Amino acid sequence: MSDRVATEFTGPHTFASDNYSGASPEILAALAAVNVGHDRAYGADSETQRLQTLVAEHFGTGATAFPVFNGTGANVVGLLSMLPPWGAVICSATAHIHTDEGGAPEKAGIKLLTVPTPDGKLTPELIATQAWGYGDEHRAQPLAVYLTQSSELGTLYTPEEIAAITQYSHAAGMRVYVDGARLANAAAALDLPLRAFTRDVGVDVVSFGGTKNGALGAEAIVVLDPQAATGLPYLRKHRMQLASKMRFVSAQLTALLTDELFLRNARAANAAAARLRAGVEAGLADGSIQGVTFTQPTQVNAVFATLPPGVADELRRDFHFYDWNSATGEVRWMCSFDTTDSDVDAFVAAIARSTTALAG
Amino acid sequence: MSDRVATEFTGPHTFASDNYSGASPEILAALAAVNVGHDRAYGADSETQRLQTLVAEHFGTGATAFPVFNGTGANVVGLLSMLPPWGAVICSATAHIHTDEGGAPEKAGIKLLTVPTPDGKLTPELIATQAWGYGDEHRAQPLAVYLTQSSELGTLYTPEEIAAITQYSHAAGMRVYVDGARLANAAAALDLPLRAFTRDVGVDVVSFGGTKNGALGAEAIVVLDPQAATGLPYLRKHRMQLASKMRFVSAQLTALLTDELFLRNARAANAAAARLRAGVEAGLADGSIQGVTFTQPTQVNAVFATLPPGVADELRRDFHFYDWNSATGEVRWMCSFDTTDSDVDAFVAAIARSTTALAG
Amino acid sequence: MSDRVATEFTGPHTFASDNYSGASPEILAALAAVNVGHDRAYGADSETQRLQTLVAEHFGTGATAFPVFNGTGANVVGLLSMLPPWGAVICSATAHIHTDEGGAPEKAGIKLLTVPTPDGKLTPELIATQAWGYGDEHRAQPLAVYLTQSSELGTLYTPEEIAAITQYSHAAGMRVYVDGARLANAAAALDLPLRAFTRDVGVDVVSFGGTKNGALGAEAIVVLDPQAATGLPYLRKHRMQLASKMRFVSAQLTALLTDELFLRNARAANAAAARLRAGVEAGLADGSIQGVTFTQPTQVNAVFATLPPGVADELRRDFHFYDWNSATGEVRWMCSFDTTDSDVDAFVAAIARSTTALAG
Amino acid sequence: MSDRVATEFTGPHTFASDNYSGASPEILAALAAVNVGHDRAYGADSETQRLQTLVAEHFGTGATAFPVFNGTGANVVGLLSMLPPWGAVICSATAHIHTDEGGAPEKAGIKLLTVPTPDGKLTPELIATQAWGYGDEHRAQPLAVYLTQSSELGTLYTPEEIAAITQYSHAAGMRVYVDGARLANAAAALDLPLRAFTRDVGVDVVSFGGTKNGALGAEAIVVLDPQAATGLPYLRKHRMQLASKMRFVSAQLTALLTDELFLRNARAANAAAARLRAGVEAGLADGSIQGVTFTQPTQVNAVFATLPPGVADELRRDFHFYDWNSATGEVRWMCSFDTTDSDVDAFVAAIARSTTALAG
Repeated sequence: MSDRVATEFTGPHTFASDNYSGASPEILAALAAVNVGHDRAYGADSETQRLQTLVAEHFGTGATAFPVFNGTGANVVGLLSMLPPWGAVICSATAHIHTDEGGAPEKAGIKLLTVPTPDGKLTPELIATQAWGYGDEHRAQPLAVYLTQSSELGTLYTPEEIAAITQYSHAAGMRVYVDGARLANAAAALDLPLRAFTRDVGVDVVSFGGTKNGALGAEAIVVLDPQAATGLPYLRKHRMQLASKMRFVSAQLTALLTDELFLRNARAANAAAARLRAGVEAGLADGSIQGVTFTQPTQVNAVFATLPPGVADELRRDFHFYDWNSATGEVRWMCSFDTTDSDVDAFVAAIARSTTALAG
Repeated sequence: MSDRVATEFTGPHTFASDNYSGASPEILAALAAVNVGHDRAYGADSETQRLQTLVAEHFGTGATAFPVFNGTGANVVGLLSMLPPWGAVICSATAHIHTDEGGAPEKAGIKLLTVPTPDGKLTPELIATQAWGYGDEHRAQPLAVYLTQSSELGTLYTPEEIAAITQYSHAAGMRVYVDGARLANAAAALDLPLRAFTRDVGVDVVSFGGTKNGALGAEAIVVLDPQAATGLPYLRKHRMQLASKMRFVSAQLTALLTDELFLRNARAANAAAARLRAGVEAGLADGSIQGVTFTQPTQVNAVFATLPPGVADELRRDFHFYDWNSATGEVRWMCSFDTTDSDVDAFVAAIARSTTALAG
Repeated sequence: MSDRVATEFTGPHTFASDNYSGASPEILAALAAVNVGHDRAYGADSETQRLQTLVAEHFGTGATAFPVFNGTGANVVGLLSMLPPWGAVICSATAHIHTDEGGAPEKAGIKLLTVPTPDGKLTPELIATQAWGYGDEHRAQPLAVYLTQSSELGTLYTPEEIAAITQYSHAAGMRVYVDGARLANAAAALDLPLRAFTRDVGVDVVSFGGTKNGALGAEAIVVLDPQAATGLPYLRKHRMQLASKMRFVSAQLTALLTDELFLRNARAANAAAARLRAGVEAGLADGSIQGVTFTQPTQVNAVFATLPPGVADELRRDFHFYDWNSATGEVRWMCSFDTTDSDVDAFVAAIARSTTALAG
Repeated sequence: MSDRVATEFTGPHTFASDNYSGASPEILAALAAVNVGHDRAYGADSETQRLQTLVAEHFGTGATAFPVFNGTGANVVGLLSMLPPWGAVICSATAHIHTDEGGAPEKAGIKLLTVPTPDGKLTPELIATQAWGYGDEHRAQPLAVYLTQSSELGTLYTPEEIAAITQYSHAAGMRVYVDGARLANAAAALDLPLRAFTRDVGVDVVSFGGTKNGALGAEAIVVLDPQAATGLPYLRKHRMQLASKMRFVSAQLTALLTDELFLRNARAANAAAARLRAGVEAGLADGSIQGVTFTQPTQVNAVFATLPPGVADELRRDFHFYDWNSATGEVRWMCSFDTTDSDVDAFVAAIARSTTALAG
């Protein structure tokens, strides 16, 4: 194993990102299971048809899936299908499409109208700050709203909050796209079916994320209101997101949607984050951990905290994680489907050692 | 198996495309082998580092690989890295980037200057018909040449032919990109190391194709002359071709480059096409097959032939393949790494039955 | 004047292009006439309203004009308004959008499907060679046809020819755009109202060219079928073709459309070309001109001819014109609205001197 | 005149925008003066050469001008010439390129990184909030800074302020572009040569605006550091900003740069705004005007003020101007080169009447 895992990791698991983890065994098994003989390419294969059936079961009759390679591809192609050329997208200032896609939306000609938020979540009032200028040719027209569920800051929209957004947005003439790179974590935390907080509350198009939840590399654009999206086969192809051996992408998604694997994986990741949070809180309570403050609620699989100076570096001798805001000392600890209790406990102990050592 | 393979296939293997086949067992095994614990994302993982080592072994010291998801992504991102914004690409009228990418190059702002060819292959003389207008702001500047090796018509460039092209092109101020979706088939047919007909003969950037040669979905942009390509990490990211769990893409490519799997697979596909060709030729010689003519030499894994009217439909009752030019009755028969001798023999027999039936 | 006109011109008029000429006095007068006080910007001014009235008179009730800065802007913005993102444009291989716009359509994401033609003119049969692949996501969808009237080769479509094209195209699901940079020359040559060979024969959108016909810089996208074009105000703005002081663009066009100035100018240019052609033909007949052959009919204001080697250089000592195909010695002689009889006669005499001298 | 000026204007001059005004007579005269015979197209004419000489005189030896049609075209093409494909632009949240170009930068693939400012002006500290993430492929790379001089809010950078910005930006690896749609107003207000607050303080590329300062429609991208800009002729052409009869664009700019017409016009506009401000301040002092507050200093030709509810509507019965922020009642009053003292005095009187009427 040593030639596969970077030597800086003393343990097999990190808190850097849920894309540092590998794949669930069920998903590797699914790849092997579909690896039988020949099948049509570009999505005309039978596994992709099975995926449609499963997607309709989970998201509602008529929901259709367009498998793509990654989250950025899902977001950009999904949004393109919902907008005329002069359409712009309202999103949070923390939106993945704005902060972490290298400018991919703009390369596809999409202007983003960003709104600062305290917790990464939009509301009708916040959206309204950008929902104006209709008919003014000097303003890119706000015609779609982009939400991330669960958000980049690990926070969660309730179904009611999403319903309020879709009602407001539709009334204003805008469609609603949900970036579901971590949709499963939301479903697990809300303990609701996928459709309950997407299709049933007015979301027009959602991405169902596999990669961050135990897949190797698989996402699907799921169209919930067929009136909302046009030309997806063409857009996906010419934006270079069309897999030829699509059965291998679809199989990852069907495996996730079979026997609730997507929920089991997400629950495990959420639980690990909850355990991590609880462990740190306990340490703060009994004094074994000092100087750590949380900057966001822990609702899914991410913990955002601020560390005293020097602690992050100390911790990184054994555990890998990202800075979120180096100016303030805010860090992000992400848990994956395979993060174990002992991983978490070891990390909590390390946090205790580091903060105590540096505190005094 | 019945729910995985379309029922119109009576045999497990088709002659439709080398992306109808599945994956080599070695490649699935490689995915399982890298599925150990956590590793850095976005290409900073150790498997991607191993890939660099293997790529340097095969393509020469200093050659660097940028894994991407599909051939269209490799072509467009590779070409973008070689061109200023006003650069255009000279290519054959049969070029995949022109005929089969849904306009993806144009969506990325790249203008193609196409040249008709008799056999899908460019030559310095043919390239010269478009290599003019330098300094004329009204003309998109021809600054790159795109070749496909082996070509869309299943034909092959010798190393000397490529050298002539690169010498001409470089002297004219153009860089040379080789679409290597079927590079392995060329290597197998030429019986030469990969570098012998790419790096060693002046090719600047080449894509190494895995998907059509037994991978699930993996291609790499390989930069042979670092002076030729700029900004690839950024271009790959904002053109949506950056895999987060890149180890799973790299592992497919390292598996192909280990123990010559890429050659074994390609030789098998080439041999199947040769057997198919020979079988049909034998049938034509002894009269058991009538009215079939070949439109291109069979140099790798594709056979292009013209069938008498009605024969394609008859054959399609049992075997799947594509029309190439319905006006003329030209069809394309593609062999994959897993096409067996009995697949081929059964197909030849069916061709005999169909042509005889309809002729008589 | 000497500091304004390049010293290589011994005469004030050239045969290089109809954009070498200046502006009709009526148009300068129109600019002065609208230069009164303040008026709304961006097309809400009263002169732009007058233009709409004149355009409706000439092109038919309901025809609407969108003034833009240049022909490339008209073409690209016009085509964008007629296409979904996956739409491609069928055009002649000599089309201005393909040969002379520096790749502007591709920069706007438009793929061109070119068709070789003998005389720069498309026909239903020629268009049909590219009108296929509908529904195939791998093929940019042919959804618009682009014609140039009068063509880049100075040839002319009859109304019947255009009607045949629009009928064919509409039946195939394609819209028809006419590049009218030299529309006036066509109207003059056909001796028909503008609507007779555009709106009345099914053209969906046409550009009305001013710049090549005595304006300073003014073109209008004219929408003939409102169903055919969507979002023009937005497209024009974000493609940077929206004039703030639009009255000064509109005034050039209203001046052209008033008292048939556009026809007077075009007739003059056409007549000059006819005179030039006749003069050369007479010279060929009486032997005073040798070795010149015409490559296209002279139907409007351009003469295309092949000159013996060395003659072009000799002629260029006094007269400026462009090579059209240096390999064959083909040149283009363009006449403008202000090309006089004596200009033409002097040129004919020079051609006689040059060809005779070099002939020996 | 009645058919040219919208009937809602009782006076010939408005306070809506400096693009509501017409053209200086000197500029119309310049158009007539260059309208002599034929001259080369696309900028090879002698008037464009004269422009280069004048630009070098005003901006420094080696400064080169690229005339374009409008400010949006200058900004986008100028920025494109300064950036690699992965480059992003740091700008104020009030930047014209962000608020008023319909998304044109994004259509050209440029991502904007916006910074809130109190007065429309950037500072090194403000720029630094976005000048990070270098080398991170997930972040569009901040490689240019965009300033507007004078700003969208009518505020002014001193040469020292610009020098601080260019020093900071260059040290951080970023080039500096100045949107000079109202550069002349800045020059007039600063009472400095154009080069003193552009070239001499490190600005790399600046647009010289004519349209808002008495031209019909003419702007020039002026390259001050040739190392900073690449490919402008190609970029201008394929972004559809290349005028064929360029002498008519250049003549407008040469006229402005001759005998300081650009300064005379700008001084007039600035003086009118100063008079307007002073008149309102006097009214506030003596009580004849009530409830009006200024939201920005009046440094050039714009006055930004907040009006009590209902006053704007009342005023608009006779005077045209724009709302700036309808939520707060903020309006913008722009003065043009042709705004007279009596225009201003009449407006001040109307303000007095409106505010008094509604207050009492």
